[in-house]
Amino acid sequence: MKQTLVGQFFNSIADAGRELLDRGAGKSRSHTIEGVCRDLMTQKGEASGMALAREVVGLWHKAEDDQRLAFMEFLLKEVSLDSEKVDEAVKAYESDKSFENRRALAAALEAPRQELMRRINFAPGGTAAIVDMRKFLVSYLRKKPELRAVDADMQHLLVSWFNRGFLEIEEINWKTPAVVLEKLIKYEAVHEITGWDDLRRRLDQDRRCFAFFHPALPEEPLIFVEVALVKGLAAAVQPLLDLEGERLDPTKADTAIFYSISNCQEGLKGISFGNFLIKQVVSELSAELPNLKHFSTLSPIPGFMKWFAEFEGRTGRLSKDEIDNVKKEMLDKDWFNKEEVSSKIKEPLEQLVAHYLVNEKSRNRPLDPVSRFHLGNGARLERINWLGDISENGMKQSAGLLVNYYYSLKDIERNHEAYINDRQVVASSSILSLAKDN
Amino acid sequence: MKQTLVGQFFNSIADAGRELLDRGAGKSRSHTIEGVCRDLMTQKGEASGMALAREVVGLWHKAEDDQRLAFMEFLLKEVSLDSEKVDEAVKAYESDKSFENRRALAAALEAPRQELMRRINFAPGGTAAIVDMRKFLVSYLRKKPELRAVDADMQHLLVSWFNRGFLEIEEINWKTPAVVLEKLIKYEAVHEITGWDDLRRRLDQDRRCFAFFHPALPEEPLIFVEVALVKGLAAAVQPLLDLEGERLDPTKADTAIFYSISNCQEGLKGISFGNFLIKQVVSELSAELPNLKHFSTLSPIPGFMKWFAEFEGRTGRLSKDEIDNVKKEMLDKDWFNKEEVSSKIKEPLEQLVAHYLVNEKSRNRPLDPVSRFHLGNGARLERINWLGDISENGMKQSAGLLVNYYYSLKDIERNHEAYINDRQVVASSSILSLAKDN
Amino acid sequence: MKQTLVGQFFNSIADAGRELLDRGAGKSRSHTIEGVCRDLMTQKGEASGMALAREVVGLWHKAEDDQRLAFMEFLLKEVSLDSEKVDEAVKAYESDKSFENRRALAAALEAPRQELMRRINFAPGGTAAIVDMRKFLVSYLRKKPELRAVDADMQHLLVSWFNRGFLEIEEINWKTPAVVLEKLIKYEAVHEITGWDDLRRRLDQDRRCFAFFHPALPEEPLIFVEVALVKGLAAAVQPLLDLEGERLDPTKADTAIFYSISNCQEGLKGISFGNFLIKQVVSELSAELPNLKHFSTLSPIPGFMKWFAEFEGRTGRLSKDEIDNVKKEMLDKDWFNKEEVSSKIKEPLEQLVAHYLVNEKSRNRPLDPVSRFHLGNGARLERINWLGDISENGMKQSAGLLVNYYYSLKDIERNHEAYINDRQVVASSSILSLAKDN
Amino acid sequence: MKQTLVGQFFNSIADAGRELLDRGAGKSRSHTIEGVCRDLMTQKGEASGMALAREVVGLWHKAEDDQRLAFMEFLLKEVSLDSEKVDEAVKAYESDKSFENRRALAAALEAPRQELMRRINFAPGGTAAIVDMRKFLVSYLRKKPELRAVDADMQHLLVSWFNRGFLEIEEINWKTPAVVLEKLIKYEAVHEITGWDDLRRRLDQDRRCFAFFHPALPEEPLIFVEVALVKGLAAAVQPLLDLEGERLDPTKADTAIFYSISNCQEGLKGISFGNFLIKQVVSELSAELPNLKHFSTLSPIPGFMKWFAEFEGRTGRLSKDEIDNVKKEMLDKDWFNKEEVSSKIKEPLEQLVAHYLVNEKSRNRPLDPVSRFHLGNGARLERINWLGDISENGMKQSAGLLVNYYYSLKDIERNHEAYINDRQVVASSSILSLAKDN
Repeated sequence: MKQTLVGQFFNSIADAGRELLDRGAGKSRSHTIEGVCRDLMTQKGEASGMALAREVVGLWHKAEDDQRLAFMEFLLKEVSLDSEKVDEAVKAYESDKSFENRRALAAALEAPRQELMRRINFAPGGTAAIVDMRKFLVSYLRKKPELRAVDADMQHLLVSWFNRGFLEIEEINWKTPAVVLEKLIKYEAVHEITGWDDLRRRLDQDRRCFAFFHPALPEEPLIFVEVALVKGLAAAVQPLLDLEGERLDPTKADTAIFYSISNCQEGLKGISFGNFLIKQVVSELSAELPNLKHFSTLSPIPGFMKWFAEFEGRTGRLSKDEIDNVKKEMLDKDWFNKEEVSSKIKEPLEQLVAHYLVNEKSRNRPLDPVSRFHLGNGARLERINWLGDISENGMKQSAGLLVNYYYSLKDIERNHEAYINDRQVVASSSILSLAKDN
Repeated sequence: MKQTLVGQFFNSIADAGRELLDRGAGKSRSHTIEGVCRDLMTQKGEASGMALAREVVGLWHKAEDDQRLAFMEFLLKEVSLDSEKVDEAVKAYESDKSFENRRALAAALEAPRQELMRRINFAPGGTAAIVDMRKFLVSYLRKKPELRAVDADMQHLLVSWFNRGFLEIEEINWKTPAVVLEKLIKYEAVHEITGWDDLRRRLDQDRRCFAFFHPALPEEPLIFVEVALVKGLAAAVQPLLDLEGERLDPTKADTAIFYSISNCQEGLKGISFGNFLIKQVVSELSAELPNLKHFSTLSPIPGFMKWFAEFEGRTGRLSKDEIDNVKKEMLDKDWFNKEEVSSKIKEPLEQLVAHYLVNEKSRNRPLDPVSRFHLGNGARLERINWLGDISENGMKQSAGLLVNYYYSLKDIERNHEAYINDRQVVASSSILSLAKDN
Repeated sequence: MKQTLVGQFFNSIADAGRELLDRGAGKSRSHTIEGVCRDLMTQKGEASGMALAREVVGLWHKAEDDQRLAFMEFLLKEVSLDSEKVDEAVKAYESDKSFENRRALAAALEAPRQELMRRINFAPGGTAAIVDMRKFLVSYLRKKPELRAVDADMQHLLVSWFNRGFLEIEEINWKTPAVVLEKLIKYEAVHEITGWDDLRRRLDQDRRCFAFFHPALPEEPLIFVEVALVKGLAAAVQPLLDLEGERLDPTKADTAIFYSISNCQEGLKGISFGNFLIKQVVSELSAELPNLKHFSTLSPIPGFMKWFAEFEGRTGRLSKDEIDNVKKEMLDKDWFNKEEVSSKIKEPLEQLVAHYLVNEKSRNRPLDPVSRFHLGNGARLERINWLGDISENGMKQSAGLLVNYYYSLKDIERNHEAYINDRQVVASSSILSLAKDN
Repeated sequence: MKQTLVGQFFNSIADAGRELLDRGAGKSRSHTIEGVCRDLMTQKGEASGMALAREVVGLWHKAEDDQRLAFMEFLLKEVSLDSEKVDEAVKAYESDKSFENRRALAAALEAPRQELMRRINFAPGGTAAIVDMRKFLVSYLRKKPELRAVDADMQHLLVSWFNRGFLEIEEINWKTPAVVLEKLIKYEAVHEITGWDDLRRRLDQDRRCFAFFHPALPEEPLIFVEVALVKGLAAAVQPLLDLEGERLDPTKADTAIFYSISNCQEGLKGISFGNFLIKQVVSELSAELPNLKHFSTLSPIPGFMKWFAEFEGRTGRLSKDEIDNVKKEMLDKDWFNKEEVSSKIKEPLEQLVAHYLVNEKSRNRPLDPVSRFHLGNGARLERINWLGDISENGMKQSAGLLVNYYYSLKDIERNHEAYINDRQVVASSSILSLAKDN
């Protein structure tokens, strides 16, 4: 029923809206995004907010890049803080620190574009349009750093709207509509999905996939995680992705391996869902399959090779010469297929990875972003896996090594606090041993 | 599927959460709302936010009034603005009006209880709990006006969360789950629903009912409107409510009468949905039944008798003596059943109502709240109906008179602007004529 | 989406159908049920079967009783077996018992009204109309026994269509649409539901209700069972129905009491669902609440008082004088409120009920229909409950006594075979003891 | 909710069922399909029908071909008519043609395997298993013609169960679950779907797809039709299938082209749905898109080339020599790519196709099966399209020609009667002209 109603609405309100707007305004009425937004911020917006908001959404989707950029400038300059008002409010507050003056100051400090966004959101598809606007904005921030002010306001709003409490977790499987499934293919960011056969293998009986959705974006996953149900801690990803690999009876598995987590919406950059998703999936799976005893990722080390290329020091266990030697051997891009080379550099490379993950920090946090994410979630750095990902990308990023981060519900809080308060990299003794001095 | 997942969650995360919290904290951990909220605001909240939020929600629902009030005090005093920080931020901003300093000032002006509420909202049922907290708060504002500061923050958050774009309109009919239907009986605020038979008549083939829902409150209507499909502008409400009244073939109706609109959530006080709902229902009905040509309310005049009792002046058409005479006749509470009295005071009473609606204002707005609402929406004051509601309440509020506000999509914007900008009460010529001088 | 499609269909096909039928046929086309049915059985029916079927369904619902009876006569006489064809087919078969001749004979023995019903079923709502036709038919069978032939054909078809495999079990609770809930009130056949408050109590947290539905009758339960979750075998029904009774935490219950089972569709008379429903509900409840250890009915003994009134013999434990004495005491309709009478006749009355249930038979089966049903399902006659139902009806039917039939999954098959093959009334030793000779 | 219940059922009833069966029977109980079926037909079947039926379904799915064939023999020989009983019933009927004797004879003529099938259908998945059994059976009928008797009984049952009234039409689009979409790829029988990209093009904005489903086979389409929304009568299929082809705004289309209809279930062979589906889709599309004025197929002529290869006569317009000449030119398989050949044989080939479709008959019906189907539905043979399908299959079947059958709701009944009663091929004048004598 909802669908019908929404459908009707699209036709009828829209048409009614346009009609009344045009009748009311004569031919002079503006049909640029900026023009309609100006109307939306006035009394017209109160009377016909939904129709105007729909028009903004429609215009946005049809706009070319230069028009979109012009709209961002409009947000920055025209629907912006009124400095004079702020100054007045500051003065008033300083002379009398009353509740009212404080509220007035806070109000003066909220840019009107926040209210504009709230009104654009009146339209069906408004939230999606706003997320799309921010996606556009984020892609221009480097070129136009002054747009940070707009971005800050949009992020502030979206953080509030995409609060965990409004997200719905859904299991993705072969019964999921194709329109959602194709998004997985599109958004997968860790191990590319090469097509529908690949996808189907990832949704087979011994795999699970969960995503967060927001009610206002019903066909758009926000983040999804892919899980393999296996026996024992998986050490390599290619066997998990192998289309011909054996299918395990899920009630026989003892371990859930989170082998891929992908954020989907660039427009929601900086709004974090992964922490919640992993923990809830642990709960879901525990409930569905009590036979699962271990929950762990099989994760890339995206920053390792970049760091290693520039690393000129030594580690607790390796001299500079030894390290240079490893580098030399790796000049042959095919080294991992050559048993004699491979066996020679295995030990030092693992020590280097351990060193990188445990000791290398910036602002007291680990260099590696994936590591920061999982340690911040309260996971433990568990194991380094030799040649765990021998894809081109895997070799390039991290010399084929992968890492398991282990999630133990009962330790999560303690680990998180150790990480946050004591700046500690919580790791298994074997990794710590690899990383420390001889 | 969603339901199952949510269900599982309630068991497994909750239990896991409690377990890990208690193991981590030993016996010392606080189980008061305030104590858990303190944890929720620290690193613990980052690691185990959902479990802590669930605990807050559970504790809130079990709390007695004094505990709830203590929690409100806690919100007011402990999770409040840091005045020193604000002052520092003000100073920094004054010395350098940079973007960063302005943001820092805005941040300093956001009370931490806003973040606390966002974290409480992590829990399933979090939004419902927060709406319930505000309901409690609102009921204490008169006694404890200092809680306004907390209320302002909660309202700010709820306005953002209950944005029109997140609401779903649903038709309520006899296929609706009983758990929702019983809410209509509970929340109906204009013409009491006396039971299931009464309700069923209001959902019959020639009636319609629509409500807004929010995805986070799936069984709780936010506002609903009841509509009668009739021929011609309805003048009295009792025939519409009559269980034995004839049922009209809806494809034969030419008019939709909005005879009751009820807000349901006291916790959402001050957040307006009615404007959107009426306009969307006009759209929905136009699409479903193209035979409908007129959309109008049949509305009470809740402030009339109160105003009239205190009114000591004269109107354009009536002298003070004439008015006193009307008052005298109405001392007999049964006057409306007496043809000779009734016929004598009909004309002056209608003139008084017209005068009240058109001329009596406070701060340049009509005295009557229902009138303010519909005129603000862009409706037109169309007709005064003699003895339109002869229920006890109808007689007491407005001497049995009812009013039609007429919604004409093409005039809504013009009417709204006339009302807002020119302070004009848009009314039919017949009403204007009743209200003006002889 | 289905709903929309079905809805559209109702408008568009129907109209298209009528139009084309009328254009094709000119004004002469018949619009009686019989006339349209005749068309439906010819080539017209092949080309426009759905439109014609819709017309039959519409005409049936508008028809008066005499027209309906005329239609039944039409089914009996005109769309009937062709005796000559049967005789020819018999002859052909006798002369050559070939596969083809046997099939031809079987075909000749199928009355064309079966095909007519299959074609009426093409229409949306066709199944419901056919069930309604049979309801009408069944109510006339006593007056018009010759219609048995029609009834036999309809039942044959409906047995096939309402096969267990096509039924869906659904839990009925307070989230169920009102349109279904009101059917429970209407169809409850054992302990009247007096209104929505009564209904709600029966759907509360410590109650369960399950029904079978058929996809072609989506809002019509076929049969439903009401279950109370309690501690220990319930002995009386009034406490279960008490609106003010305590609500039990369902995870604390150890016993599920089936206190009411009602068939809903008179048009499906003779098609048995109860056996399947009870067993499936035992399964559902076992899965939902592993704490449930016992599954038992609390059942009326509808035939007892009727039998007792006419009983002139003696039982194994009671002489004719003793029995007459009981009868005499019971002449006072209020006996059960008088402790001294009540205590005097309790023992002999229980013995009489035990005797009635265990020993009194007709054609080797127990006299009591409820007993036949549960024993046939493989239940065990467990306990006789003194003053278990002191409602007016309960006193009238069975002197206030109720019976528990106990369902033990592991014994069902053995009990069923003992009942069917050995004509044995499977009962607890205490009941057998009450029923046997001194 | 239904899903959960069904799921629970699978676990609990199944286990309970097996347990009780095995406890009851000891180790001696049979676990062959035949053995369990024997139990199912006895009292055991009445007590534990569902559990036994589940076991049959499970055993069937695991059975090898030889076991399945043995089961078919069992159905043929053991659960078969009792000839003696039939003979007795014939005798009784001959001596007294009473209602009872006639019913008894009809009953004796129903093979017990029908009841067995009804009982197998008690199980979840029972209907699917029975359809699968018939699929197996149909594939063996040629080798084992004696199984016709079993097939006749299964078909009789399935015709009744898959009555139009129980089918649900559903629109298939990109929101449909992948598990259903992959079935389209599998079952498409006219123009192969080469993968997901091809499928997506067929579900794009200017395409529609509808299927019939039966509630007992929720993920299995029974038949589906693919429709292209175009301007003007489409003449060739390759442009419709072209992935790069332009997408038309569906509100701009005036014609719906049914370019592919596929039956999906071999186990439902001989049960016709296509007639209903086409007419209902015409209704659905008319309601959705009032701009559609024409409904037509673009159909293959599957029998043409086979007929043509063996045709040795002449037609009204072509001499044997002329025909032989066409055949000669077509010996070059690539003739259609050679303009000079192609232009030479276009006219005679079209005449031959027209002749084949209009004049060539067997038992008074057109030779071509697709033609029989659409003419039987009341469509009109509208146009012959030169090189409408130049795929390998299209060339092989019908020399690249395609045909439009035109559905005009108002003529359907008249056309159907002309076809059935007068054996008339209803065709456009242009086709008739091509087919007739010079």
